[in-house]
Amino acid sequence: MPGRLLLVPNTLDFGVASAGAEPGLDETLPLGVVRTAARLGHWVAENAKTTRAFLKRVDALVPLVRPLQEIAIVELPRPPKGRPGGMPDLAPLLGPALQGLDLGLISEAGLPAVADPGAALVQAAHARGIEVVPLAGPSSLLLALAASGLNGQSFAFVGYLPIEDGERAARIRELETLSRRAGQTQLLIETPYRNPALLAALLAHLQESTRLSVSCALTTPGGSTRSDSVGRWKAKPTPLPVDRPAVFALLAG
Amino acid sequence: MPGRLLLVPNTLDFGVASAGAEPGLDETLPLGVVRTAARLGHWVAENAKTTRAFLKRVDALVPLVRPLQEIAIVELPRPPKGRPGGMPDLAPLLGPALQGLDLGLISEAGLPAVADPGAALVQAAHARGIEVVPLAGPSSLLLALAASGLNGQSFAFVGYLPIEDGERAARIRELETLSRRAGQTQLLIETPYRNPALLAALLAHLQESTRLSVSCALTTPGGSTRSDSVGRWKAKPTPLPVDRPAVFALLAG
Repeated sequence: MPGRLLLVPNTLDFGVASAGAEPGLDETLPLGVVRTAARLGHWVAENAKTTRAFLKRVDALVPLVRPLQEIAIVELPRPPKGRPGGMPDLAPLLGPALQGLDLGLISEAGLPAVADPGAALVQAAHARGIEVVPLAGPSSLLLALAASGLNGQSFAFVGYLPIEDGERAARIRELETLSRRAGQTQLLIETPYRNPALLAALLAHLQESTRLSVSCALTTPGGSTRSDSVGRWKAKPTPLPVDRPAVFALLAG
Repeated sequence: MPGRLLLVPNTLDFGVASAGAEPGLDETLPLGVVRTAARLGHWVAENAKTTRAFLKRVDALVPLVRPLQEIAIVELPRPPKGRPGGMPDLAPLLGPALQGLDLGLISEAGLPAVADPGAALVQAAHARGIEVVPLAGPSSLLLALAASGLNGQSFAFVGYLPIEDGERAARIRELETLSRRAGQTQLLIETPYRNPALLAALLAHLQESTRLSVSCALTTPGGSTRSDSVGRWKAKPTPLPVDRPAVFALLAG
């Protein structure tokens, strides 16, 4: 019997809480998930260092089954840039599962394989008959959607916008048209230091009646959501932080 | 100071676990969320009866701040069918928050206002300057997406398909085209007893190379995900349960 590939959620405070001041994992993760994480001896991770920090937080609640230095953590290879199809073979990463051991997959924040690396490994697991089990945990995208009050019956996540001004403006108008045609909320993200630039571009290119919601650092102290028409955002701007992750949601009015 | 509108996640075992046999809430919800829920005296709910059942499970972990029968639970009005714009005034539901008390919003499973009622109330809260705070919890849509191994960098949730055969077939082809054009995973759901009919329609109308993932009853015992090409689904069918919720995900190959 092969082991399983467990998709282990991380908290959403990556890069937000100052080291040593993190809240207990049980503020945002189920204890059942923490217990499962404490039992795993093999991990595939977006980042080994942050995974060790995560496991220390696990250990504070539920003792790890073996010492941290004996837990195997292998980093996901990054897909080589500009060489589509050049993805390295992921099968070796699944070795522990093929040998009958449960294997954890974790990213730096939220659910692995959603707006984060990991999907190729999940696909490789399915192809080899390894059971894939996602564990309950938060997603900043869906928390931002819930908090927006925008359409939660139809929505799309489109990732990052182009950085070049003209291309970005065109993409913003395209998303607004898509949103109007299908009544579909469009969710997007940006690298934190570009949050203010993305907000300025959205306010410049969206129509006044379109609704825009911005959620910052949800589930952490000081997390916030403002959901308002573009017209009211313009009349009364809210500056965005440049050091905290934000999720932007828009719905054509 | 007004109170806040807290978006409280529910477990994903609605209609799955048999009454009395539910696992502890801490298997799928963070203890921090359970503690917050135990303190709330006012709720707006998709369903009052299931909210009382939820509060009994809360009480088993963290004693409720007041007896269950003294906790106010108001049901969300259902939007009148076929009368767009006839939505009742939701402002009275926000009364406790306007008087300075925190108010919980909860649905029968997962996050409120995502593939569930509640977005109009969230919007009404924003319009009145009431802070909206989403609490960390699981979403069956994103767990299914993570477990699918399909594209998690670009995806859309499109809700239910039409029931009529011809319309459904046309919509399936439209979603496949959308998925191919944008490389976008398409997520859909169905009422459990129609799961087999939806699977049959997907297999009949999608191309063999399109990848299809079906997750059933995630986070509950016996929860499962199969992710495979349409060709392999056809060659080796897996029957779907008619009494457990499923999430379907497709990505044109």
